[in-house]
Amino acid sequence: MDTKKTIALDMDEVIANVTPKFLDLYEESYGRRLKKADYWGKKIYQIEGAMEIRDRLFEKGFFRNLPVMPGSREGVRALMDDYEIFITTAAQEFRNCLEDKYDWLQEHFPFIHWRNYVFCGDKGVLGTDYMIDDHARNLEGFRGKGLLFTASHNIHEDRFTRVNNWTEIVDFFQEEQIKNLSV
Amino acid sequence: MDTKKTIALDMDEVIANVTPKFLDLYEESYGRRLKKADYWGKKIYQIEGAMEIRDRLFEKGFFRNLPVMPGSREGVRALMDDYEIFITTAAQEFRNCLEDKYDWLQEHFPFIHWRNYVFCGDKGVLGTDYMIDDHARNLEGFRGKGLLFTASHNIHEDRFTRVNNWTEIVDFFQEEQIKNLSV
Repeated sequence: MDTKKTIALDMDEVIANVTPKFLDLYEESYGRRLKKADYWGKKIYQIEGAMEIRDRLFEKGFFRNLPVMPGSREGVRALMDDYEIFITTAAQEFRNCLEDKYDWLQEHFPFIHWRNYVFCGDKGVLGTDYMIDDHARNLEGFRGKGLLFTASHNIHEDRFTRVNNWTEIVDFFQEEQIKNLSV
Repeated sequence: MDTKKTIALDMDEVIANVTPKFLDLYEESYGRRLKKADYWGKKIYQIEGAMEIRDRLFEKGFFRNLPVMPGSREGVRALMDDYEIFITTAAQEFRNCLEDKYDWLQEHFPFIHWRNYVFCGDKGVLGTDYMIDDHARNLEGFRGKGLLFTASHNIHEDRFTRVNNWTEIVDFFQEEQIKNLSV
């Protein structure tokens, strides 16, 4: 068994950037490019009248071409020196995303082994030491240490350690390593 | 949060019966129907010269039409009264099986919610109370109580509580319920 501590790392809005895609879809449907102020505090499909945009998540291909979150590739590589990373994504609501997410990971994070992919629904099943996620509901029942990755829909949440970007994630885990040395 | 105890339930050779499919494939390739004695103590594709059969696992459709393991549907239903069941399957080696496994579960176990599907690689990521699996390697690092479901390849294994069929699984968990009442 690997003795590294384990991190459950979410995909969407943490390593895969969903926002630009939703901005494009909104613009296609409503002819207007949203500004941050329009959706700050919620998800883009929670804007009044835009709920149908959420249905696009069920389409084949939706998750295949998302851009990589800035700094995430370098950040994951850095964490892998000291931690075992599991990609834990709530994929199961969307049957058609399974292959897309698999192919996306193979393309953009080829240095993470498929053994470490976890496509789940309820993340309560996970027993890792850490979890990085943009949804407070996933951190709520988690028994390890949870980090909330900032996204438009979670800015009012204050129950968890917040990380705003990948630099802050890497810094957090460097601090953890120092703490472990001193005990 | 659900307060039921949780069970990680493997798919292949526990609720999905892979053996008849391998017997068919062997017969197609080598013109002979295997008897139990031919593969007892190993996997069918570990029979000398038959390793190429394992490659069929990578084909689209392989997992889609497997028969349901006798008694598993009724057994899972019975366990769900007292336990939360997660279907935990080592799917990630086989990219093409993801949709097949999803569709199979929807067809044969529609009473299990997609939230409770976990398609993973390394099962060390799971933090459930129990695990039912036919591979000793999955039970080795598991921190909960592991049950080894008898399959041809694990008959010489003696480190775990063995269950030979679904009747024995249901009986085991009925005993657990009685134990919990008396403490």
